Amino acid sequence: MSQLKNMSLSELTRHQEELQKQYDMYKNETIRLDMSRGKPSQEQLDLSMDMLTVLTNESHVVDANETDIRNYGLLDGIPEAKEWFGTMFEMAADQIIVGGNSSLALMHDTVARAMLHGVDADATPWAKLPKVKFICPTPGYDRHFSICELFDIEMISVEMTEDGPDMDQVETLVANDEAIKGIWCVPKYSNPEGITYSDQVVQRLSKMETKATDFRIFWDNAYAIHHLTDTPDELLDIVKQCEHAGVPNRVYQFASTSKVTFPGSGISAFMASKENIQFAKKLMGIQTIGADKINQSRHIRFFEQIGGVEKLMKQHAAIIKPKFDQVLSTLEQKLAEKEIADWTTPNGGYFISLNTMEGCAKRVVSLAADVGVTLTGAGATYPYGKDPVDRNIRIAPTFPSLGELKKAMEILCLCVELAAVEKVIKQ
Amino acid sequence: MSQLKNMSLSELTRHQEELQKQYDMYKNETIRLDMSRGKPSQEQLDLSMDMLTVLTNESHVVDANETDIRNYGLLDGIPEAKEWFGTMFEMAADQIIVGGNSSLALMHDTVARAMLHGVDADATPWAKLPKVKFICPTPGYDRHFSICELFDIEMISVEMTEDGPDMDQVETLVANDEAIKGIWCVPKYSNPEGITYSDQVVQRLSKMETKATDFRIFWDNAYAIHHLTDTPDELLDIVKQCEHAGVPNRVYQFASTSKVTFPGSGISAFMASKENIQFAKKLMGIQTIGADKINQSRHIRFFEQIGGVEKLMKQHAAIIKPKFDQVLSTLEQKLAEKEIADWTTPNGGYFISLNTMEGCAKRVVSLAADVGVTLTGAGATYPYGKDPVDRNIRIAPTFPSLGELKKAMEILCLCVELAAVEKVIKQ
Repeated sequence: MSQLKNMSLSELTRHQEELQKQYDMYKNETIRLDMSRGKPSQEQLDLSMDMLTVLTNESHVVDANETDIRNYGLLDGIPEAKEWFGTMFEMAADQIIVGGNSSLALMHDTVARAMLHGVDADATPWAKLPKVKFICPTPGYDRHFSICELFDIEMISVEMTEDGPDMDQVETLVANDEAIKGIWCVPKYSNPEGITYSDQVVQRLSKMETKATDFRIFWDNAYAIHHLTDTPDELLDIVKQCEHAGVPNRVYQFASTSKVTFPGSGISAFMASKENIQFAKKLMGIQTIGADKINQSRHIRFFEQIGGVEKLMKQHAAIIKPKFDQVLSTLEQKLAEKEIADWTTPNGGYFISLNTMEGCAKRVVSLAADVGVTLTGAGATYPYGKDPVDRNIRIAPTFPSLGELKKAMEILCLCVELAAVEKVIKQ
Repeated sequence: MSQLKNMSLSELTRHQEELQKQYDMYKNETIRLDMSRGKPSQEQLDLSMDMLTVLTNESHVVDANETDIRNYGLLDGIPEAKEWFGTMFEMAADQIIVGGNSSLALMHDTVARAMLHGVDADATPWAKLPKVKFICPTPGYDRHFSICELFDIEMISVEMTEDGPDMDQVETLVANDEAIKGIWCVPKYSNPEGITYSDQVVQRLSKMETKATDFRIFWDNAYAIHHLTDTPDELLDIVKQCEHAGVPNRVYQFASTSKVTFPGSGISAFMASKENIQFAKKLMGIQTIGADKINQSRHIRFFEQIGGVEKLMKQHAAIIKPKFDQVLSTLEQKLAEKEIADWTTPNGGYFISLNTMEGCAKRVVSLAADVGVTLTGAGATYPYGKDPVDRNIRIAPTFPSLGELKKAMEILCLCVELAAVEKVIKQ
């Protein structure tokens, strides 16, 4: 796999010493850089500051139906927020519940409802079954995996390809195991690889035979409008595909404005078939009287005022594209020729996925941490935190400044090389 | 019980005809009045309009620790919001989780966690037990009962006295039945009676022997600061009482600003022992990255700006006290001498509890509905929607205007009398 293989032991040792010397120099600096979580930077957050004051008088706190949105009511959200998500995802008003500040909570609660009540009135609550399993395309999003762990749902890893999850594997698994009740998908600009599912993958997901009649696709469309280029990826509409395939209830779609406006104070949406939504609403109506409608209105009015959310997303891209470029150019410059790592080049989303030599990811993350660079924990992108070949590292370039990122990436690349040399010497 | 008993059948029939004539006159009007839910009126909502624009610049979106509250993080809330609730309820920062816009959701989720995971790391998840029961002091809050129904928790009614739940009953029940895992309490200005638990009741709740080691008091302190008089009721601090009694983990306390600022857009708090909070946080951290911190900051800054929440609550009282007085004076004037009903006179909260003659509540609600006056459904204040003697009606005076309320109450009193006469004639 690598040039290192052609080096003699003495060459390798000398090379290691050089790298170690460079690394030790960083040790003497006080570095504190964080590339661990997909957080917008302050500059991005500043883009939405006008949203805070967009509602000023009483005419701003009634919705499209003249309902006073300050008061109780409207479990599924104000009409204009439903329309906003509905236009973006081509869903009808009765296919949408607008939620609070966390689509993660919508996903968690959807799994919790399935555990305690089943996916519909006739289905068995998953908690009453001896075993429930989910397919987890890997690498994937650690918080999805945590939900499975919380509810004692066994996770089955399926490898990601350039087109999405390996559908041969997925189809075989769901056709033969009734305990498999779900699959987690981040279908567009996936976390962490930035891959968008191909049309064929989406079609196969909607058409595949599942042994479980209560199988559900958890479609976390978190980065639907988070493009980095002017020629964004296109994703087939899975809700429509499932309708056409005669399984309209198979998919739950989730989205939010967490990385559009403010991560802690956005609005979210749960979208699915009318039947799924009705069932969810019946149970959710016991949990809450509804999400924060004023914040929904605040968002919609702000998007109108700035001339549409697309404009805002271009401003985000203008800030974060140079950061992705910085990461990619450093990787290219420092590692490309050495053949000790590969990485993805996404057209959107929040992450770049880096694969080190096998067995090196943990060591790289630990080396980087020791000089003050925080990366997502090695293994976090796999179920149970265990990367079977210990090579995947998720890079989150958005939060640090360009200058910080340059330094952090130089350190990361050095650590990747150092860990690789250590490994080859040991072999 | 009633003067009606002394009337002859012909007198009764004549009286019924007169009442029916009055009632039929209302039938010809187009009346639409709603006294069903505890909703603040528009005038009350207007009191908090300045909150919408209280955060304007970047110095307003960092918390007391200089953390950027627009971004992810702070599962348990911003320090100043914790301090605000902490001061009000005498709780330390590590005993508080500040939640989103719904304390109902905090309660629902707390029950859901107990169902799926138990109340602590060593406890059996309630869903794994053959039977779980809760004590429900009645009349009580219908949404509490709905949570029990949702999770298939059997409800045992215990009668409310003037001091709170009948503690002789409660003590006997919890001492002898291990399946009894909880009790719902609205301890101050209770829903619907407006009763505040006496010190002795609070002490007995904290000291009583429970057969279940994982018994929990759900202390829904929804109306803690919602006084109608200048000499408010005082409630003993149950968290401290449970600490003193050596059962610090027995109680979960809930509160919110739903009826302080905006019902759909308030902030809430879950308060308990440090150990309970730590356990909840561990599980909640999988569900969400945290509640809306900007809205927390918006609240705290607004309360500061207006010179304290007590001032705001006095403004609320100035609006709603005349409505309570209107209800009470109409009841007094129309029904007092007739001895066919009794009612409570609360010092705070959102409700007045009306007891008709036994077997008449459903008929009264139905009669009122037929002329356009919506009341809380008869039976709603009891588990499973079933008032065993069919007499309790919850009156929610806050939402209608004074004029509407006057008319609605005249109609209600007429319906109470009509139903009573009908009943006596039938006997």
